[in-house]
Amino acid sequence: METQKKILCVGLVCLDIINVVEKYPEEDSDSRCLSQRWQRGGNASNTCTVLSLLGASCAFMGSLSAGPVADFIRADFLQHAVDVSAVVWQLEGQTPCASCVVCLSSGSRTVILSDMNLPDVSAEDFSKIDLHQFKWIHWEGRNADEQVKMIQKVLMYNSTLPQQDRISMSVEIEKIREPLFQLFPHGDVVFVSKDVARHFGFQSGEAAVKGLYSRVKPGATLICAWAEKGADALGPDGVVVHSDAFSPETLVDTLGAGDTFNAAVIYTLYNGGTLQDALIFGCKVAGRKCGFHGYSGITERFKDE
Amino acid sequence: METQKKILCVGLVCLDIINVVEKYPEEDSDSRCLSQRWQRGGNASNTCTVLSLLGASCAFMGSLSAGPVADFIRADFLQHAVDVSAVVWQLEGQTPCASCVVCLSSGSRTVILSDMNLPDVSAEDFSKIDLHQFKWIHWEGRNADEQVKMIQKVLMYNSTLPQQDRISMSVEIEKIREPLFQLFPHGDVVFVSKDVARHFGFQSGEAAVKGLYSRVKPGATLICAWAEKGADALGPDGVVVHSDAFSPETLVDTLGAGDTFNAAVIYTLYNGGTLQDALIFGCKVAGRKCGFHGYSGITERFKDE
Repeated sequence: METQKKILCVGLVCLDIINVVEKYPEEDSDSRCLSQRWQRGGNASNTCTVLSLLGASCAFMGSLSAGPVADFIRADFLQHAVDVSAVVWQLEGQTPCASCVVCLSSGSRTVILSDMNLPDVSAEDFSKIDLHQFKWIHWEGRNADEQVKMIQKVLMYNSTLPQQDRISMSVEIEKIREPLFQLFPHGDVVFVSKDVARHFGFQSGEAAVKGLYSRVKPGATLICAWAEKGADALGPDGVVVHSDAFSPETLVDTLGAGDTFNAAVIYTLYNGGTLQDALIFGCKVAGRKCGFHGYSGITERFKDE
Repeated sequence: METQKKILCVGLVCLDIINVVEKYPEEDSDSRCLSQRWQRGGNASNTCTVLSLLGASCAFMGSLSAGPVADFIRADFLQHAVDVSAVVWQLEGQTPCASCVVCLSSGSRTVILSDMNLPDVSAEDFSKIDLHQFKWIHWEGRNADEQVKMIQKVLMYNSTLPQQDRISMSVEIEKIREPLFQLFPHGDVVFVSKDVARHFGFQSGEAAVKGLYSRVKPGATLICAWAEKGADALGPDGVVVHSDAFSPETLVDTLGAGDTFNAAVIYTLYNGGTLQDALIFGCKVAGRKCGFHGYSGITERFKDE
């Protein structure tokens, strides 16, 4: 299953400070939380964590600004054996940090994200990395104009190589933001979220992959996960593939479940599995992950499946 | 005004993560803050900052647990020229970190503090430090049983020395917690908060210092600050001394105003000023500090007054 070349994920990394409370605090009050933990967050960053725990060699590309938040994040990446040599150290802005309040009595999660004007990775930054090290590159849709330019660079690189050496490309369109929709025709594999599918008027994963398939490029695969309904995908053969969800006995932590799904799907396809295998494995890892806090439980349970 | 020997402050240091928002976030929402800043907090820690900015040589003693929060705090202490060699690095627990939401529209400040079971500094820890370096030691009332033992050690040390070489001792009784009240008879200078004064039934600083004076040891000075009403003090001569408040034109940031008052009072007394001088300077520095964010504005405005 192992290959030498790495999977690169391009996107956001931030720090999530998670305060677990019994009751959501009233304005102007002083209270103590039951527990607090610091967790590296951000979609592409979480996907790297899960890829690495599954046993894939992977790298992260995104922006950081020197300081204690970046120190924490860098140490956590290294602890998870994620290559950070492609990280862009920005001189302006600050690394984003989210204060999250997770409330046990109501089940709510309230998030205050700081937006500290940290520039995103540009196509110019991307042009400095050595593409030979990668077999797969995944983009979390953010600064889509620049990301399209990055993808074009990879297409040019691929055009010089025989089929088996080319880099596969996936994109994630998660947020309902018009500029992100230009990414649809730019991935070999396109992940579209339930939120975006609904925005386009679709009420199921199957309807979404059928209805949005005309937006992806010829030969591409479109995938849509739908929480407890599982996930659907449509590839160039025109057959909709489905997997049911694998819900845990008790829902413990849904933070990053989507990123986990993406990682497990990419992992399977990267290793030559079928689309059906990929969907099932994606649902299995993501579903069971919701049964424990964080990601480390993934190592023991799925690495050798 | 300068002497060689340092002022030591014993108490809490924590990290305050301050999220400035327009509107207090509703439960289960996602929002962005207008700005976020990290600030070293904790009473004794803040008092050190101000002492240092005023030009005093000072040291902090409190607990830290290795990690990114402690790294930030340590760097910030060093940046403010506060000696941290007496810090106790605990092996259990985590450095406390508070998530603060400061709301511009309502003026509210909501604080969620994490209590990560970090042990307080003990009398045994205290017995390891070399008392010769200090001319003044200030305790923020916390683990009072242990703090009384520390004070007894200093009394023993003082008993071997001529009057002019003895260490002056101050204690702060800020929180309404019964065990802290045992600290009243243990300081040469005792700071009692408006909250504690009210708890004992007093409605002004003057009433508080008169009514609570029987609790302090013979020869001691009792001081009570009362926000916009200024501050009152009573010493062994039986005369109540008062200073009005010096309110800034615009109230910008009241976080740490009490710690600033304590620092400016200690600074004046340590340098041989009168009680009246100390109260006026305390009110002046604390009041004007409320007119800007953080503490750094103190340097230019008060150092040479």
